[in-house]
Amino acid sequence: MKARVGCIPCFVKQGLSAVRLSTQDPVAQQRVLDEVLRRIQGLSLDSSPALLSQIVYAAVREMTGVADPFAEARRRTNRLALALLPDLRRRIAASPDPLHIAIKAALIGNVVDFVVGQAFDLERDLAQGLETDLAVDDYPAFRAALKDCETSASSAGPRLLYICDNSGEIAFDRLLIEDLRTRCQVTASVKSRPIINDATMQDAEEVGLPAVAKVIETGSDDIGVNWSRASREFVEAFRAADLVIAKGQGNFETLDETPGEIFFLLKAKCPEVAAELGVAEGAHIFLRSRARRPR
Amino acid sequence: MKARVGCIPCFVKQGLSAVRLSTQDPVAQQRVLDEVLRRIQGLSLDSSPALLSQIVYAAVREMTGVADPFAEARRRTNRLALALLPDLRRRIAASPDPLHIAIKAALIGNVVDFVVGQAFDLERDLAQGLETDLAVDDYPAFRAALKDCETSASSAGPRLLYICDNSGEIAFDRLLIEDLRTRCQVTASVKSRPIINDATMQDAEEVGLPAVAKVIETGSDDIGVNWSRASREFVEAFRAADLVIAKGQGNFETLDETPGEIFFLLKAKCPEVAAELGVAEGAHIFLRSRARRPR
Repeated sequence: MKARVGCIPCFVKQGLSAVRLSTQDPVAQQRVLDEVLRRIQGLSLDSSPALLSQIVYAAVREMTGVADPFAEARRRTNRLALALLPDLRRRIAASPDPLHIAIKAALIGNVVDFVVGQAFDLERDLAQGLETDLAVDDYPAFRAALKDCETSASSAGPRLLYICDNSGEIAFDRLLIEDLRTRCQVTASVKSRPIINDATMQDAEEVGLPAVAKVIETGSDDIGVNWSRASREFVEAFRAADLVIAKGQGNFETLDETPGEIFFLLKAKCPEVAAELGVAEGAHIFLRSRARRPR
Repeated sequence: MKARVGCIPCFVKQGLSAVRLSTQDPVAQQRVLDEVLRRIQGLSLDSSPALLSQIVYAAVREMTGVADPFAEARRRTNRLALALLPDLRRRIAASPDPLHIAIKAALIGNVVDFVVGQAFDLERDLAQGLETDLAVDDYPAFRAALKDCETSASSAGPRLLYICDNSGEIAFDRLLIEDLRTRCQVTASVKSRPIINDATMQDAEEVGLPAVAKVIETGSDDIGVNWSRASREFVEAFRAADLVIAKGQGNFETLDETPGEIFFLLKAKCPEVAAELGVAEGAHIFLRSRARRPR
């Protein structure tokens, strides 16, 4: 999707969040925000919000010298999410349709605010989230697509590429992948270098993802997928995949026009993405891409 | 209060809201926002957020030529609020302490989102709000202050200046003033010219305020009170007042350091004002000013 005018205040807000994690000095914070204001002036909106927002993070990084302000937040969110797994695993196992519940759980991982969340609140949010219906739920289409490619796939089963989004959340992704791997050959992707709270190989390892899937890197630290900087390994995994699950807004924003049998699993966290999807802000979405690869 | 770095994204967001009401053309919207970004670069934060935000509204006004983008919103919110008055008046009359409930009702007027509100939601929000305790409630101090100045006041009773905030809300202010006028001589103030959804004389007239209080103008279209542009009439009403009730964030931001027996009635709608007040974001507040006039 293309960025919209409504993304502009959000770019500034993202700059504030990043600079606050990089320096405590309000004078330095304002100087960095001034640079953010300068760089986003006259910005062409002919690109996705995810890719454009990187202008902001680059400004903060260059001016503060802090390469990875979200490092500590990633460690903490992984720990919090891992603590929730035993309960969540029981809930999934007890469900009449564990795959469907695991999909909802992985989506809730994208929703729960690990950064400010208390363990108590997280458990409550999680329980509520599992009860909530998705605003768009292409689960039947996902099951059908899975069945289709089972028929045509090699004996090792269809190939599924799972594009991870955030730290913390990635522990919940692991639960979904534990189910998916009984049906498919799963490859999961993480960022090659840190960017905001997006999961990296370190996060994958912290939640034990390599034990349940082949984990590869996207090739860059772009929010979402930037084809011009993607690794050969990621491009090949994407091309070879019978099915793709792409988590979070950044991946939706950058892959919604890419042909492929892609299922987007996200919360529409902002008004612009919600408008693009035609749903209410805050809606939970499991959406089969409208830009399917011609077969 | 002084603006903080956290106000900067909000200035841009306010610019977006105003420009969206001024033009539907996204190219023009972005051009105006670019100008907003330019004007707030390097801004000295040594003033209140309310006064600084006017830089934003001036940019939007100058570039779009739309002098009063919120005019229609003000008309609509007054109509919606007026429709709620009969029910609200009954609730206040039925309460064991009508003045306290009328204060809470006037605060809820500052909270209810008339702009997007459906009548159904508004009634529900209102009923819930009246049940909710305030995070800071200096009502006992207000009663005591009222009693103090009753003793010393002329036979016409103590003088109370009621500084209004928004349209819509001003209908609820009228209900509170209907109670206050049985105890005090009430003067209410509105803006001299339109600025965002702040109440003007037209709004006061639309909700029948002149029937229950003397209504004066602040002298300007500043958000909150700007002493350097205040009318002589407003300054004299403020000086003569035994008690002041100041509604909303803008009046808190601009009057919190002004000596006087001022009671602030507001919702802490943003993180920066909440931090200034030492309360949670969203808290409902009836606060006696800490900068009381020496007696």
